[in-house]
Amino acid sequence: MDYQPQPDAAWAVLQPVLGAPAALGALPAFADTDAALMQQVLDEAGKFVGEVIAPLNRSGDEIGAQWNSGAVTMPPGFREAYQQFWQSGWPALASATEDGGQGLPAVLECVLYEWMSAANHGLTMAPGLLHGAYECLKHHGSDELKARYLSKIATGEWLATMCLTEPHAGSDLGLARTRATPQTDGSYLLSGTKIFISGGEHDLTDNIVHLVLARLPDAPPGPKGLSLFLVPKFYQDGQRSKVVCDRIEEKMGLHGSPTCVMRFDDAQAWIVGEPGKGLNAMFVMMNAARLHVALQGIGLLDAAWQKADAYARERRQMRAPGSAARTGEADRIDAHPAVQRILDTQRAWVDCGRVLAYRTGIELDMARHHPDATRRTQAQRWCALITPVLKAAWTDQAFHGGSDCLQVFGGHGYVREWGIEQIVRDSRVAMIYEGTNEIQAIDLLVRKTLPDGAQALDALLNDLLADLGEHPATALGRTATGLFTELRDAAHALGKAAPHDAAAPYWVAGDFLRLMALALMAWAGARIEAAARTEPALASDRWQRPLTALAHWVLPEATLRAGLIRARCAVQPVSA
Amino acid sequence: MDYQPQPDAAWAVLQPVLGAPAALGALPAFADTDAALMQQVLDEAGKFVGEVIAPLNRSGDEIGAQWNSGAVTMPPGFREAYQQFWQSGWPALASATEDGGQGLPAVLECVLYEWMSAANHGLTMAPGLLHGAYECLKHHGSDELKARYLSKIATGEWLATMCLTEPHAGSDLGLARTRATPQTDGSYLLSGTKIFISGGEHDLTDNIVHLVLARLPDAPPGPKGLSLFLVPKFYQDGQRSKVVCDRIEEKMGLHGSPTCVMRFDDAQAWIVGEPGKGLNAMFVMMNAARLHVALQGIGLLDAAWQKADAYARERRQMRAPGSAARTGEADRIDAHPAVQRILDTQRAWVDCGRVLAYRTGIELDMARHHPDATRRTQAQRWCALITPVLKAAWTDQAFHGGSDCLQVFGGHGYVREWGIEQIVRDSRVAMIYEGTNEIQAIDLLVRKTLPDGAQALDALLNDLLADLGEHPATALGRTATGLFTELRDAAHALGKAAPHDAAAPYWVAGDFLRLMALALMAWAGARIEAAARTEPALASDRWQRPLTALAHWVLPEATLRAGLIRARCAVQPVSA
Repeated sequence: MDYQPQPDAAWAVLQPVLGAPAALGALPAFADTDAALMQQVLDEAGKFVGEVIAPLNRSGDEIGAQWNSGAVTMPPGFREAYQQFWQSGWPALASATEDGGQGLPAVLECVLYEWMSAANHGLTMAPGLLHGAYECLKHHGSDELKARYLSKIATGEWLATMCLTEPHAGSDLGLARTRATPQTDGSYLLSGTKIFISGGEHDLTDNIVHLVLARLPDAPPGPKGLSLFLVPKFYQDGQRSKVVCDRIEEKMGLHGSPTCVMRFDDAQAWIVGEPGKGLNAMFVMMNAARLHVALQGIGLLDAAWQKADAYARERRQMRAPGSAARTGEADRIDAHPAVQRILDTQRAWVDCGRVLAYRTGIELDMARHHPDATRRTQAQRWCALITPVLKAAWTDQAFHGGSDCLQVFGGHGYVREWGIEQIVRDSRVAMIYEGTNEIQAIDLLVRKTLPDGAQALDALLNDLLADLGEHPATALGRTATGLFTELRDAAHALGKAAPHDAAAPYWVAGDFLRLMALALMAWAGARIEAAARTEPALASDRWQRPLTALAHWVLPEATLRAGLIRARCAVQPVSA
Repeated sequence: MDYQPQPDAAWAVLQPVLGAPAALGALPAFADTDAALMQQVLDEAGKFVGEVIAPLNRSGDEIGAQWNSGAVTMPPGFREAYQQFWQSGWPALASATEDGGQGLPAVLECVLYEWMSAANHGLTMAPGLLHGAYECLKHHGSDELKARYLSKIATGEWLATMCLTEPHAGSDLGLARTRATPQTDGSYLLSGTKIFISGGEHDLTDNIVHLVLARLPDAPPGPKGLSLFLVPKFYQDGQRSKVVCDRIEEKMGLHGSPTCVMRFDDAQAWIVGEPGKGLNAMFVMMNAARLHVALQGIGLLDAAWQKADAYARERRQMRAPGSAARTGEADRIDAHPAVQRILDTQRAWVDCGRVLAYRTGIELDMARHHPDATRRTQAQRWCALITPVLKAAWTDQAFHGGSDCLQVFGGHGYVREWGIEQIVRDSRVAMIYEGTNEIQAIDLLVRKTLPDGAQALDALLNDLLADLGEHPATALGRTATGLFTELRDAAHALGKAAPHDAAAPYWVAGDFLRLMALALMAWAGARIEAAARTEPALASDRWQRPLTALAHWVLPEATLRAGLIRARCAVQPVSA
């Protein structure tokens, strides 16, 4: 069974829960984007993903991308599907019209990529990096570079890469050694080796644009010595650049996406942005990419849930406790509490994850297009604080919850035939790339929360409380309010501990992120609960059972996490 | 880096912590087994596993078992390694001397199989099923069957299978349909298809002995209609039986072990034990197999830890918080709290898991050989209650903790080269086979704890408390005492809820098992802590840091689990 996008479920989150059409329609940029247009886009996206992208998932895993003497052949059907994808305008959905895009809200792109990832994580890696590259080039590229590359990237006619990691420089990009030597014509020659480059080489498009972190000859050591450069696979004159794919990695999963070792051998390149500001330019790409990875997590978990739910409705084993059935030999396994609990819990993670991720997509639109600077600042705060939580918690859940869904199949789950084990293997990488989940936790706590005395976090939580106040009071709303207090208390305890115990925040950063994820889940659940008062579809078992599971089985973990943080703040440091 | 068994670490658990030599030496059966002999066996086992078994792990995964027209070729080197294994007497370590075994304590076999699984899970699957088959045949087989097969199985010259599962009968074996038709000579003809048969066909040994659940013509439906039969691959006269391996499964991992679909086509068979008592005879096999699977979990987690620990000692990224280092560009990643926490936590699971599993091995020896019936009953209680906890909690941990160890490698963890992703893939199946972990939880709570009003559990916990009282009081000992009370309270709350809410125990059986696992971890940690008072090696960082991690990061989860159980007991059932 291939993944099937459910436009109705996405729309239920976008319209009754989040009121997206009204919020976005109020922006001058989207004055022409009404609910009907949004629904039409979703319907077409759902059809495209279900019919063209999803059927290639299994063979993408089994055949995989193949390397041969520097060339990479993608799995059968991938090139045709990608060509159809960009020619139908999907990559350019939210790009500016002046760059060849459709200028639609970013939140629609979020839904599209969630479905794409659910349907075929490997293939989706290729266009997944386009959007960050587009933003990066648009904001930091010279007019000449933009003229050459921006519309090709905006439309997806050419694909792009982010070349950051080196063998000894992973989480610590400051250790990167790739050199850039200035030439008299204003260009540079790049030399060095980059690893873990998704889509570094492939046959999906006629050209590939690499964005590469490298070091100028006079650059200081560390992150401040890094600049960003652009090298295409083919130059304007059709000549091939001195960029070689030395091999692709054999991986646990994600076989449909070539993970390349790229060697730059005095390759001619152009600088993007200011010398020494390479990481700043790259962070533009990374924030977009992190939300994208969060959506992968949500999508893959939904794909796992779809499979497990369908299996549990067919498979019969034993009598369920308290079963009234007297016919047949056994009950459907979705009547067994252990299976129900797994299914409803994962459904809760998907539903609440969507509320949060789609709302983040809307905030991205606000940050870009709202006429009021205060509202834009508020939206940027939302994105800065919530993106790392979504990235880490929902990719964790894709893997662990995906494994729970595998468990529903018993022994059949371990066998390739059912496709669920592929989801578990594919999803594992999302906990690592675009900043490991440990790095996300440090980003949230140590970089974005503690330095300003938790003011930004306080402001975000006040926004969320004010938002709750605008909707009917619910049980989950009360839980969310309590968890926000726990989260503030945790932030303040860590703020007090850190000056005399510098390591304390690093020990419990993961717990802090998890506590925040649970608090946000409660908020998201409360918004579904509130919307269900007026929207009958949301009052059904489909939406309400996951909320019950959320309250019973998911949210109690928050107390554990808060306790771990408090205990660490009370403990004297073990070492200096 | 291949897995390297650490006989010293095993011995530290067996001798200073558990006092195994004295306890076992007091049994008449082991009057000749002193500490020196036990250490010698462990040293030789360690060498054999490290030199012969471990080096075949990677190619076992990459090449895997191959099926061709009903024959299965094992990965290169497997047959030679297995032949050396049985000819050196390893499978017969704990078998009775009258059957060709060495009559050594079962606990030594536990250590051997833990290391084997850590070194090469796929290859270890083959002899892993021998011991259950040996016990089963020894206790239930006719004299004629024993004369033909017992010593061949005891020595491992021939391997054995357990043929239980059918396509529609997984956790619910009562649905099995394989038929056994009696013949005039006292034998039977078996017909049916069994799936998920580990080692159903291979080239490791010259014969394979299948133990098969099937139904006699007049048998009632359900589990009470099942009888157990024996069919060899080759009969006495060299003729091949009508048992065909139709295919092997393509799996997420464990490629070194063929998972076979076995078709029985009027295959001549003999009954083992009484008609209709097939499941009883099979349960003898399953209990041994479940402890074996728990040891796989411990071993695989140790293998993952070894790799991650070695990597973290080499890899340098960024400055650790509070780092005093001023040389070099970055600190070793094991100085970063997020990495330390992962490593120490997994080490705690391995160390405490060993205390519990090796003690279970000793209790197996007590149950078999102690002259006092009361002590034998006590030992049987230990095995009955603790085996499902070990099986479920430590296979969960092998997968999830193995995934945490993968995370230590960052992107490199996702690449095959480092071998850590293989451990995660291989370990996943252990949460499913020999009874899914959900079934283990139901076995513990619904079958073994609630029916007698938690009397057996109470008696076990009293034994554990008495045992704590014989050793110096420690902080973890106090924690364990508190958790035992939590566990009793949870059992009693569930006992009160079940009569009016039959589903309640099924909703939280997993939480109950997890609470018990954590309480047992605390007890095991307390035993290490107590032994460290007199054994300097145990007072080192190697043993003490994991105990700190246990107290800080692992045990607090017990409060969460107890709370989930209490909440469910207080809730009225949602459905009838």
